[in-house]
Amino acid sequence: MPRRPNIPHSERNCSWARTLDILGDSWSLLVIRELMVGVDRFTLMQERLGISKGILTARLKHLADHGLVEAIQKDKEHPRYGLTEKGYDLFAVLVGIGQWGDKWVFGKDNEPISVLDGRSGSKLAPLKVQTTDGVTLSPEQLRFEAGPGANDATRQSLAKLLSSKSD
Amino acid sequence: MPRRPNIPHSERNCSWARTLDILGDSWSLLVIRELMVGVDRFTLMQERLGISKGILTARLKHLADHGLVEAIQKDKEHPRYGLTEKGYDLFAVLVGIGQWGDKWVFGKDNEPISVLDGRSGSKLAPLKVQTTDGVTLSPEQLRFEAGPGANDATRQSLAKLLSSKSD
Repeated sequence: MPRRPNIPHSERNCSWARTLDILGDSWSLLVIRELMVGVDRFTLMQERLGISKGILTARLKHLADHGLVEAIQKDKEHPRYGLTEKGYDLFAVLVGIGQWGDKWVFGKDNEPISVLDGRSGSKLAPLKVQTTDGVTLSPEQLRFEAGPGANDATRQSLAKLLSSKSD
Repeated sequence: MPRRPNIPHSERNCSWARTLDILGDSWSLLVIRELMVGVDRFTLMQERLGISKGILTARLKHLADHGLVEAIQKDKEHPRYGLTEKGYDLFAVLVGIGQWGDKWVFGKDNEPISVLDGRSGSKLAPLKVQTTDGVTLSPEQLRFEAGPGANDATRQSLAKLLSSKSD
C-alpha cells in the first residue's frame, strides 16, 4: 500500500510535484516558451503552436491563475500576454529541455533550431549543476536533507531513502 | 486557422515538443527523479510517490520504450530499475524544476528538502544559462536561427517570429 495514497500533487510537501502540477501538460511549457521568446500575440502563438483557440485560452488562464503569465494588453480583438518574473524564472528549465531534445531526439548537428548569444553568436553550453562555490556535480554526488519546510511525511520519506541506500 | 493543425508533438520538428511528448505527464518526471536519487526498487518507488501499481508500471514501460529507463534486475518479485545515460541527462532539468518550486511555491527558507554537495555540504547555485565562452544570458539576449535539422515549417515559423519582433 502506498503510504500517501490519493494526495494530489498540488498538496504535496514536494517542490517537484508542486511545480509539475503548475506546469501541467506539455502545452503549458510550450506556451511559456513562446512568451519567453517574445511571441506575445494570441493569434501568432496559436499559429506557431498549431493549437486550438480553446486550449490556448485555457492554458493562458491556468498560467495566469498561478502567477506566471499576465495580460499586457486586454484589447479583446488583439490581446497580448507576457511572463511575470515567476514565469521568466523557468528560463533555465526551458533551455535544458530544448538541449535534451536537440541531443537525444534530433542528435548532434541535426537540431531544428540553433540557440545563440544574440551579440557574440556563441552557442549555449550544456546546463551544469553547480554548487555556490562553483563545483560541478553529478546526480550521485548529491546529499538530501530535510529542509526548513519539511513535514513529517517528507522526513519519513528521506529516512527511508537513506536506509534503502545502506541496504 | 493554425498553420500546422493536428500535428502531434511526437512528429514536430521541435526539440521542446518532442521532449515534452516523451516526458509525458508529471508522473514521468517524478519517476525519473526517484531513479536519479537512487530509488531503484518498484515497491519503494511506489510507496514514496504514493502512486498506483498500474500507473507506475505504465510510466516505467513508457520511459523504457523511449530509452530513458532500463530494468537492471528482472526478478518478477523484486524488480529494480535504473536510468540510462539518456535518462541521467535530464539531471539539470530536474534540478531546475526543484529549484523553481523551492523558490516560487514554498519560498526562501521554507523548502521541504535541502539539496547539497554530499562532500562539502555546499548548497546548489541557481542554474544559469551560459554560452560556451562563459557569458551568462537572459531570455531576451538569445538569437534563434534555423538549425541544420530545420524543416520548411520551422524556417517559416522562425521568419514569422523575426518579423513579429520588428513590428
